[in-house]
Amino acid sequence: MSPKPWLPVAPSSPFSLANIPFGIISTPGALIPRPATILGAHVLDLKVFAERNGFAGLDEIKPHTHVFSAQTLNPFAALGRPIHSKVRMYLQSVFAEDTPHPQVLRDNEGLRADAIVAVGSVTMHLPMEIGDYTDFFAGINHAFTVGSLFRGPQNALQPNYKHLPVAYHSRASSVVVSGTPVHRPWGQILVNPAADPKVPIFSPCRRLDIELELGAFICKANPLGQPVPIEEAEQSIFGYVLMNDWSARDLQTWEYVPLGPFNAKNFATTISPWVVLPDALKPFAVGGIENDAELLPYLRETRKQNQYDIQLQVDLTTAQGATTTVTRTSGKNLIWSFAQMVAHHTVGGCPMRPGDLLGSGTISGTDERSRGSLLEQNLGGKQKIKLDGGEERMFLCDGDTVTISGLCGTEEGGLVGFGECSGQILEAIPFS
Amino acid sequence: MSPKPWLPVAPSSPFSLANIPFGIISTPGALIPRPATILGAHVLDLKVFAERNGFAGLDEIKPHTHVFSAQTLNPFAALGRPIHSKVRMYLQSVFAEDTPHPQVLRDNEGLRADAIVAVGSVTMHLPMEIGDYTDFFAGINHAFTVGSLFRGPQNALQPNYKHLPVAYHSRASSVVVSGTPVHRPWGQILVNPAADPKVPIFSPCRRLDIELELGAFICKANPLGQPVPIEEAEQSIFGYVLMNDWSARDLQTWEYVPLGPFNAKNFATTISPWVVLPDALKPFAVGGIENDAELLPYLRETRKQNQYDIQLQVDLTTAQGATTTVTRTSGKNLIWSFAQMVAHHTVGGCPMRPGDLLGSGTISGTDERSRGSLLEQNLGGKQKIKLDGGEERMFLCDGDTVTISGLCGTEEGGLVGFGECSGQILEAIPFS
Repeated sequence: MSPKPWLPVAPSSPFSLANIPFGIISTPGALIPRPATILGAHVLDLKVFAERNGFAGLDEIKPHTHVFSAQTLNPFAALGRPIHSKVRMYLQSVFAEDTPHPQVLRDNEGLRADAIVAVGSVTMHLPMEIGDYTDFFAGINHAFTVGSLFRGPQNALQPNYKHLPVAYHSRASSVVVSGTPVHRPWGQILVNPAADPKVPIFSPCRRLDIELELGAFICKANPLGQPVPIEEAEQSIFGYVLMNDWSARDLQTWEYVPLGPFNAKNFATTISPWVVLPDALKPFAVGGIENDAELLPYLRETRKQNQYDIQLQVDLTTAQGATTTVTRTSGKNLIWSFAQMVAHHTVGGCPMRPGDLLGSGTISGTDERSRGSLLEQNLGGKQKIKLDGGEERMFLCDGDTVTISGLCGTEEGGLVGFGECSGQILEAIPFS
Repeated sequence: MSPKPWLPVAPSSPFSLANIPFGIISTPGALIPRPATILGAHVLDLKVFAERNGFAGLDEIKPHTHVFSAQTLNPFAALGRPIHSKVRMYLQSVFAEDTPHPQVLRDNEGLRADAIVAVGSVTMHLPMEIGDYTDFFAGINHAFTVGSLFRGPQNALQPNYKHLPVAYHSRASSVVVSGTPVHRPWGQILVNPAADPKVPIFSPCRRLDIELELGAFICKANPLGQPVPIEEAEQSIFGYVLMNDWSARDLQTWEYVPLGPFNAKNFATTISPWVVLPDALKPFAVGGIENDAELLPYLRETRKQNQYDIQLQVDLTTAQGATTTVTRTSGKNLIWSFAQMVAHHTVGGCPMRPGDLLGSGTISGTDERSRGSLLEQNLGGKQKIKLDGGEERMFLCDGDTVTISGLCGTEEGGLVGFGECSGQILEAIPFS
């Protein structure tokens, strides 16, 4: 159990002293984005904290405090995991009721006034400048259910599925931070797949869906041509966010052969703003879904507990304001770990850079309300989902807000969570 | 015909006064990368030129000359095409024998000495910081030939092919500048596709291929949710480069279902270093391959001449030094224009940013030695390609150097070309 902080923290807060995630904030009085951490409802402006000698008690960070003046977390991330660990532990010690550094913040009224901001008065920004964003397909329950819809259960998983973490390159420019509204995309739809000839219409997406995912940010660069060995791959991961990989299913069905999803995925991907470090999640490491294939050596991990038991939840709030929890599942429902994803991604020599983002793929359990996409819940558009308040949904309606949350631990031990990953669907823009 | 320059320019140079492309250089005496242009074998350092008042005769650029101190062309590109046009025309006037600005450079011995560098003493860098790289599939002859190999000629083109510019997101981090060596990638290969169960081996790629492409850099940002209309899409294109989208065919065959190519494409993509502006290519605009589908309005262009008749050539040089021209074709062998690609890419609201890169897809003619990939020339690995000097190739061998070049115009009128897009294949790294 982590020590008690001297600042009041609600037991239900995802940002207990056991967490200490990192994000990028601005405030009405200081519009330039800058790094911060959060404890309960208190945001610590790390730029002010660093400039005012807050890191006086941590020698290792002193040559690097300029990273807290950056407008993204990329420079901090690039310092590497041993430094992140030290910074997190130091901040925990600064916030502890019996802090060994009382003069740094607890008893420093001036710095408290200038560096601690109420969460309600900060604007959150994308935490990192994302170089490349890759979306994996490691949620085997999702892959199986969706594959069954398209190809039947016998051929649901492609022959490669258990031998390599299947992935596609996705679009970095359309990754947005929680709270950003998303217009329903226009695109080409083949209304009648049996028609001959096949002629698409141009329409706002009619099958707008969500994908519940975990995202991992990279902190370590590997040069072109130099793979990251599996045993070092964990050191490449800066931290985790929640992700909603919005998907236009009807656009996808028409466009995706033979080169994969494109406009169906590149109109928006929403992430939660606070990056939770692997150190904070470590107590919640568990085994994932077992892979019964014999893996090639470059993908073999010695550790068994290579997933996290994060309690994930998807809430859908209608325009009328009724909220339904449509999904409850666990982050452990993956067959590939992020370390395996990094090892595979780089095995041919592809360089990764700090700020690159990896998506897990849709995380689904096996029962109906544990599925991380509406497509799975509505059986491919065949069965409406009942919402609280009497409405039904096949796919998303304009005005719907989808909010993903994720929590580990207990209120007694201190919750480690991500906050919200939320976005509202706005109507399609008028198209001239 | 463009005017004669006061600097000597070989008639065979791709960098006549009619060209004036932009790139990023460094020199042994000044290691910080900076913008430049090239005329014949003379490189003009635009940072020095701008700092020493070289743009005195061009009012429009004066508020923006800081862009020439940047380490990439992104800030210059972001100024927009009207400014690029003015800068190019101004530089042409400065280089003209009867320049109206003789004091700027021609008669300014000091600035000539400091700002003009011989091409042999510059190192070229990636011209832009690439946000996202998207690879299209607009070379219909390539799509048809490769589709025929996999699915037979009746089903070679998917039903969507003529209705939308098919594309996939590719990897920005592994785009490298001409001259960068490329290690043969390791990866998973299914040696016997008929085996049951299908178990891959881990091996250096055995079917390493090239893809001859044109690349277009974006200069204009569109916000999330705001498509770029087709009639404005040309204004989004900063300029063009040659591209070799190295491809690991055996990795691709195994990995690409159902989400598209991944490690088969992300180990390296080579581009030529000088960005040739659309203005320089305009005299060579021609019609491309006609699309007999009725296009949706958002893809309909009024102009007919929406491709460029660039004479493209691929040379393969063996480790022994024998060079064979394996491909000769024209850049006009595309069924979609880059403007159509931009309109489609953004139609769902995907944001583009200055520095984003679009690849055309492999450009192939219809006869054997006009095909832009070895896979097409060897009929899917069935017929070896004879090289000058007696060797044969199915796919690339270690030590092979592939060089793409592209030229428009005539020596009389002044050639407009790209220089070289070249890379040598090194042996696979030892894998522990």
